[in-house]
Amino acid sequence: MQRPPAEPGMSEDQIDTPALVIDLDTLESNLDAMAAYCKEAGVRLRAHAKTHKSPVIARWQALRGAVGQCVQKVGEAEVLAWGGVDDILVSNEVIGPQKLARLAALSRMSTVALCADDIHGIEQIEAAAQFVSSRLTVLVEINVGSGRCGVDPGAPAIVLAQRIARSKHLVFGGLQAYHGGAQHMRLSGERETAVGIASEMTRRTVEQLSKAGLPCPVVGGAGTGTFAIEALGGVYNEIQAGSYVFMDADYSRNQPPSAFRQSLFVLATVMSAARDGVAVVDCGHKGMAIDSGMPFVDGREDIVYSSASDEHGTLRIDGTGNRLSVGERLRLVPGHCDPTVDRYDWYVGVRNRRVEMVFPVAARGMMQ
Amino acid sequence: MQRPPAEPGMSEDQIDTPALVIDLDTLESNLDAMAAYCKEAGVRLRAHAKTHKSPVIARWQALRGAVGQCVQKVGEAEVLAWGGVDDILVSNEVIGPQKLARLAALSRMSTVALCADDIHGIEQIEAAAQFVSSRLTVLVEINVGSGRCGVDPGAPAIVLAQRIARSKHLVFGGLQAYHGGAQHMRLSGERETAVGIASEMTRRTVEQLSKAGLPCPVVGGAGTGTFAIEALGGVYNEIQAGSYVFMDADYSRNQPPSAFRQSLFVLATVMSAARDGVAVVDCGHKGMAIDSGMPFVDGREDIVYSSASDEHGTLRIDGTGNRLSVGERLRLVPGHCDPTVDRYDWYVGVRNRRVEMVFPVAARGMMQ
Repeated sequence: MQRPPAEPGMSEDQIDTPALVIDLDTLESNLDAMAAYCKEAGVRLRAHAKTHKSPVIARWQALRGAVGQCVQKVGEAEVLAWGGVDDILVSNEVIGPQKLARLAALSRMSTVALCADDIHGIEQIEAAAQFVSSRLTVLVEINVGSGRCGVDPGAPAIVLAQRIARSKHLVFGGLQAYHGGAQHMRLSGERETAVGIASEMTRRTVEQLSKAGLPCPVVGGAGTGTFAIEALGGVYNEIQAGSYVFMDADYSRNQPPSAFRQSLFVLATVMSAARDGVAVVDCGHKGMAIDSGMPFVDGREDIVYSSASDEHGTLRIDGTGNRLSVGERLRLVPGHCDPTVDRYDWYVGVRNRRVEMVFPVAARGMMQ
Repeated sequence: MQRPPAEPGMSEDQIDTPALVIDLDTLESNLDAMAAYCKEAGVRLRAHAKTHKSPVIARWQALRGAVGQCVQKVGEAEVLAWGGVDDILVSNEVIGPQKLARLAALSRMSTVALCADDIHGIEQIEAAAQFVSSRLTVLVEINVGSGRCGVDPGAPAIVLAQRIARSKHLVFGGLQAYHGGAQHMRLSGERETAVGIASEMTRRTVEQLSKAGLPCPVVGGAGTGTFAIEALGGVYNEIQAGSYVFMDADYSRNQPPSAFRQSLFVLATVMSAARDGVAVVDCGHKGMAIDSGMPFVDGREDIVYSSASDEHGTLRIDGTGNRLSVGERLRLVPGHCDPTVDRYDWYVGVRNRRVEMVFPVAARGMMQ
């Protein structure tokens, strides 16, 4: 594990780099805004911890009304449960007896649920639940447009739901209907169309389930790019947004601009400036995800982070005063917040450029 | 930290996924081949630990004749020194009093050297060395074609070398002349041209330094894509290859094919197979670097890993028997080995598909 890059009380200039910095005022304003929105729309917020991987931030969300957390992995569920989170949905399939045994064991400590899209998968979940004499809640995942996991809406989903409901070790929890692909469609019209189709497929499946005597306690999905559409559509009752806490360069390209503001930064130091118009910072793609493009340099439109190698970022500087000096520090806005967070062991929380707290990215790297 | 995904004695089928698996026979054959090559060519091997991040693998390299290790970060140097590595070059600039103080402290434990490309940077190194009453060895980094760090060859390098040599707290160690951009040029002719130019610039700088009374104990550079060119050119005396221990999908695109074979795999499990011709595995780009392209599926040319999201990989399956089953396991060949290793806490070493050892990626995430 990396050493903490800062101590409370330091100024931002004293933080060792690269470091993952949260502007706490902005984070709190994002948390407040989403809580207010969900309350107003009458939907539950089950925030996605794949973004923050932290029981601390989960608690701040719970204090504002979130009903629980989503995760993608059993290892993330464990870290949250051990950190006091009492209601966790693995919004993903869990495969193999080792992982299922861990999740079943965790169900004695916190309320846990998971997703399934395969009949043999459900049999495995049943075996794990039986072994710990526990009942596990299972949601059926349906493919509403992303073409990744999930059975087709309608009949295939009903078959799985009935199989779950028949088991004395399982509880049918509802539908997982997340359209990941819609989150980063650039225009609001595109997102509305995609989520409209997804919502209608989901609505019909809920209706068919209801006719088959299987009500859906949870109809979950949505993300930071589309949550307002699902929240107002009357089909979804749980919103699973994650990125809104931090935001990133990729979300900033969505139109119209989001109400959420950038609270997450990677603090970097200029380590080489041997040529005019070029500088190199000490953070490349080992320290920042570039799957969704290069970072921006916060507040410096004259600088372009043009390419990332493993441990170096090359900057191009426009204009006549085209120099940065070795040792200068820059706030980078990561291209993609979730996988960037996963590169760090510590959050450094700052307020007015002073370190207020340092706390762990507790579920960092929990991929199993 | 993740829990270890396996225990010695397990079969490969029992390893929890995603997991970072080394085929030990192949790794050893790669280590032997590079050691034999460097011995034959009469150059020293200072293997690059940015790839493996492990004092264990460093020891295997030392036992075969490597003179030491390179690293990119002070945190990596610490982990190696604490793990018994006694000669370490930070093949990179180190900026800021915190990091320099740590490196100076480490110089009381192991032989350490670092690079510089800036006069003020050298002054900072001097101050750190003075503070611990130690002498630090500094190499001047020159830009030989990558356009990243490094001063221009010739006069600017001489100025820095003289500044280092004048200091009673510093030792001039030679030149760092790595051409990163040449490693992945696809054709051998392109690589030969690029390294030929780099070598000639380096040779002239060595000559000018010699005339100025500053011999170069180390002239270091080269990587897995070009080491044979530097080794035979008569200018470089230390080869800094790292990836040869593992190899990756990107290096496999170089022509002609390398003598080194793929020893590193990410073991993944099929977690969803709801549609014909498509399957989803439990490893996306949180678990595998995609900066140099998608992974291959080892031994399965009928399967294409077509896209990676954070925690999912989508596979397209050709042909008529176009199904994978949930629970099936696949060995993925990562696009880029170094940053993929950095995603994991543990190596699982297998021989004949049986787990022989589990050991930590000890310097994982050491970016500072």
